[in-house]
Amino acid sequence: METVSKALSHGGVQGVYRHEAATTRCPMTFAVFVPPQARDGVVPVLWYLSGLTCTHANVMEKGEYRAAAARHGVIIVAPDTSPRGPDVPDEPGNWQFGSGAGFYVDATEAPYAANYRMYSYVTQELPALVAAEFPADMSRQGIFGHSMGGHGALTIALKNPGRYRSCSAFAPIVQPSTADWSRPALEKYLGPDAKAWRAWDACALIEDGHRLPELLVDQGTADSFLDTGLRPWLLREACERAGMPLTLTMREGYDHSYFFISTFMADHIAWHAARLG
Amino acid sequence: METVSKALSHGGVQGVYRHEAATTRCPMTFAVFVPPQARDGVVPVLWYLSGLTCTHANVMEKGEYRAAAARHGVIIVAPDTSPRGPDVPDEPGNWQFGSGAGFYVDATEAPYAANYRMYSYVTQELPALVAAEFPADMSRQGIFGHSMGGHGALTIALKNPGRYRSCSAFAPIVQPSTADWSRPALEKYLGPDAKAWRAWDACALIEDGHRLPELLVDQGTADSFLDTGLRPWLLREACERAGMPLTLTMREGYDHSYFFISTFMADHIAWHAARLG
Repeated sequence: METVSKALSHGGVQGVYRHEAATTRCPMTFAVFVPPQARDGVVPVLWYLSGLTCTHANVMEKGEYRAAAARHGVIIVAPDTSPRGPDVPDEPGNWQFGSGAGFYVDATEAPYAANYRMYSYVTQELPALVAAEFPADMSRQGIFGHSMGGHGALTIALKNPGRYRSCSAFAPIVQPSTADWSRPALEKYLGPDAKAWRAWDACALIEDGHRLPELLVDQGTADSFLDTGLRPWLLREACERAGMPLTLTMREGYDHSYFFISTFMADHIAWHAARLG
Repeated sequence: METVSKALSHGGVQGVYRHEAATTRCPMTFAVFVPPQARDGVVPVLWYLSGLTCTHANVMEKGEYRAAAARHGVIIVAPDTSPRGPDVPDEPGNWQFGSGAGFYVDATEAPYAANYRMYSYVTQELPALVAAEFPADMSRQGIFGHSMGGHGALTIALKNPGRYRSCSAFAPIVQPSTADWSRPALEKYLGPDAKAWRAWDACALIEDGHRLPELLVDQGTADSFLDTGLRPWLLREACERAGMPLTLTMREGYDHSYFFISTFMADHIAWHAARLG
């Protein structure tokens, strides 16, 4: 693991790191904030998964998470959103597929299956590296994310019951298998059989019996992707049918940007911290 | 004035605006955050001046000022750092002069005098526009900034006694007329006579009798520009000789970046708010 940059911030250390990832067969960059409490021992880890077009840097620069993470004593890890590089198949110009759009799945279709394994990267390879390199208590992990990363957080938590003590999302894609901006990507990564997509779709996972103790979701009412891409009411319906507690708050006038995310970031971190102990 | 973008954030509105500036003879872009308290009447205005290479966007994205501004009910205005455009003389590739490096002076030398009038822009044209377009109480203004913008905040406040009720800075250039990265710019903007530079140099202004009731400065000890470009001890010496109260805090391990600025942003805004009433 190579240190790209390190800076003191809010009493902790904000770093950017790079490593050769075996899972995605390319160098991967990620950001880690270590709060001041980690000087005295291991602290909980909160994973933040970013949305379409993002790298590790968007939330690191605009997410305003460090004050709250330092207050509550949690590590924040922000992975990239896809494999990248000259040897990674891509569709340049398509912001909804390929680079910046890994959708946190393990692709099964050629030529994508060799690199687009963001699910395994985020749930296995990167946690092992974080456990080895940072003062992280891996028995206390939470996960959250935004948009495509909200989809990632929901599906990863649902697929790994008991592993994440807390799961929340900002404006998540709750049913990617039917949304315009994600269905074509699932088809290319996973093949034409829509049944295979259900394992990567939060609403379908809940319908198929996966459960979490509770979910926290915030969604802006002025989000331009609300009606076609996000549709949080589908998650509410799935949770109601499953008897799964969901706190979904519609935030009047907020859009899809980091101006929205940063507004509710401290609330989400406090909510996770209460569950991470 | 044209609205470039507007988004709800932390209960207020973060906007970006553009106008044809008469002072600098080019279109100028600036950012304004209006806190929720402005729905009930005018609120104080706090000017943030940015450093070398920045636009209005750096602090807007990385400064983490909105939570504190919304808590205390102050408008934050972030101007650009220079005139820009195809008709504005520049030295492409020189990050310490021209575009992104206006140094908040009114240039007197050709060909720069026609456009590089950031002092008049920030103290006259833009305040008039802000007063006309936003719920701003112009009798309650404060000013702060970072690096070159810290220099701007200090010199602008010193040159306009009584106009700004509060003045603070993050890692300011306190004596630009002798620092390597600013002296060549002053010479090109103001001519070779070093006496003319004193009117744009915080330490020289204090030596020459300008006074403020108090100053707040934070400076990181791991700032790579500390010894050659910033040298806050020169400001401390000038303030001590003048009997001017200065609260200069050296922040152990912090660098020159927005990771440093954002850490102490809320403290500075609270300090200004207490003085803006």
